[in-house]
Amino acid sequence: MAEPTRFISVPGGFLMVLRQGDDLFVHLEKLMRDEDIPAASVRGFGFVSTIRFGFFDFERRDYDPRDFTDMEVTGLTGTLAWKDGKPAIHAHASAAGRDFQAVGGHLLGLTVGRGSFEMAVTVHDRRLERHFEEDIGANVLRL
Amino acid sequence: MAEPTRFISVPGGFLMVLRQGDDLFVHLEKLMRDEDIPAASVRGFGFVSTIRFGFFDFERRDYDPRDFTDMEVTGLTGTLAWKDGKPAIHAHASAAGRDFQAVGGHLLGLTVGRGSFEMAVTVHDRRLERHFEEDIGANVLRL
Amino acid sequence: MAEPTRFISVPGGFLMVLRQGDDLFVHLEKLMRDEDIPAASVRGFGFVSTIRFGFFDFERRDYDPRDFTDMEVTGLTGTLAWKDGKPAIHAHASAAGRDFQAVGGHLLGLTVGRGSFEMAVTVHDRRLERHFEEDIGANVLRL
Repeated sequence: MAEPTRFISVPGGFLMVLRQGDDLFVHLEKLMRDEDIPAASVRGFGFVSTIRFGFFDFERRDYDPRDFTDMEVTGLTGTLAWKDGKPAIHAHASAAGRDFQAVGGHLLGLTVGRGSFEMAVTVHDRRLERHFEEDIGANVLRL
Repeated sequence: MAEPTRFISVPGGFLMVLRQGDDLFVHLEKLMRDEDIPAASVRGFGFVSTIRFGFFDFERRDYDPRDFTDMEVTGLTGTLAWKDGKPAIHAHASAAGRDFQAVGGHLLGLTVGRGSFEMAVTVHDRRLERHFEEDIGANVLRL
Repeated sequence: MAEPTRFISVPGGFLMVLRQGDDLFVHLEKLMRDEDIPAASVRGFGFVSTIRFGFFDFERRDYDPRDFTDMEVTGLTGTLAWKDGKPAIHAHASAAGRDFQAVGGHLLGLTVGRGSFEMAVTVHDRRLERHFEEDIGANVLRL
């Protein structure tokens, strides 16, 4: 059987349906390159086998990561842009497992679980870049 | 007094305002049928008297449900599609009550509470169907 | 150095990037006035130094507020409208700190933290007003 399509074009952007085992960042980066997306806002939800959140430690200048498994992502919100010629995806999400208690944060990784992950991608018409700002120690989307 | 309108047309879709006692699924299904919506992405927030989340048990092939009452829905994200000629709504949400602790998951039911529930519906131009996939035991949106 | 632009026009609306120290409500109200926005749906995410949620007490007819500091907002959803000639913003959000445990509710205030806050604003074409409804004791968006 042919591999199912992961996205279709809709008015204003794209609709994505990722499937079990899919890596969210890999597929969003592929979409950005394949469709030459200058910038976009995304939102999504679905079931994940693993989701990695990170909380930024400004001392270490890196994220303290934590993984959660077998969770429903209750909402993902992000912006697709570019940095040094490469896709630069910034997204946050919340998720909950069997006990319905919600966790969340800055998204470092996401692998789709048994089920699917649905995303709406709204494309913007200007190429946007992220720049590292030394004074705050973070990448900021430059308008 | 005439019953207040629950939705208006806006560029790209609809804006809905549901009111105390309204059942979210009933009103979204009515919108889909009345306006002949082929597929749509929705997002919303508001106050609920009852929200039912479910976590899927793949052994039983059914959701373990849990109800929460008198909560602010902090974010609802979903996709409207069809299955066997009927509306097939898939949505996730997070919510929090008086203690601000968030819960969330797959949405099984939602009744608007004292206040209102605001939703933005972005319509897509292709009719999308959900299909049951035996190997993963879940309905998946086919693109 | 010139003050960075906080928003640009994109198809269907605006993209905002707020910066450390920015007050979300001040900037959204300014956007509404400057760009003469009749109504809009917004969503966003980012890092906050302070976020204030409120849970409505119908006896007192006011919100019981609680502040949280140094949090990632995992998702903000809102609607921009007007009331008595002034911007009337209604938004809910969820957020999580270092322990990734999510909190959330009705948004009373938000100050951007070290980093930024990205928002997508989808503009609607009709001016919408909120009206206080005595029987439910709350402002409701009139369609």
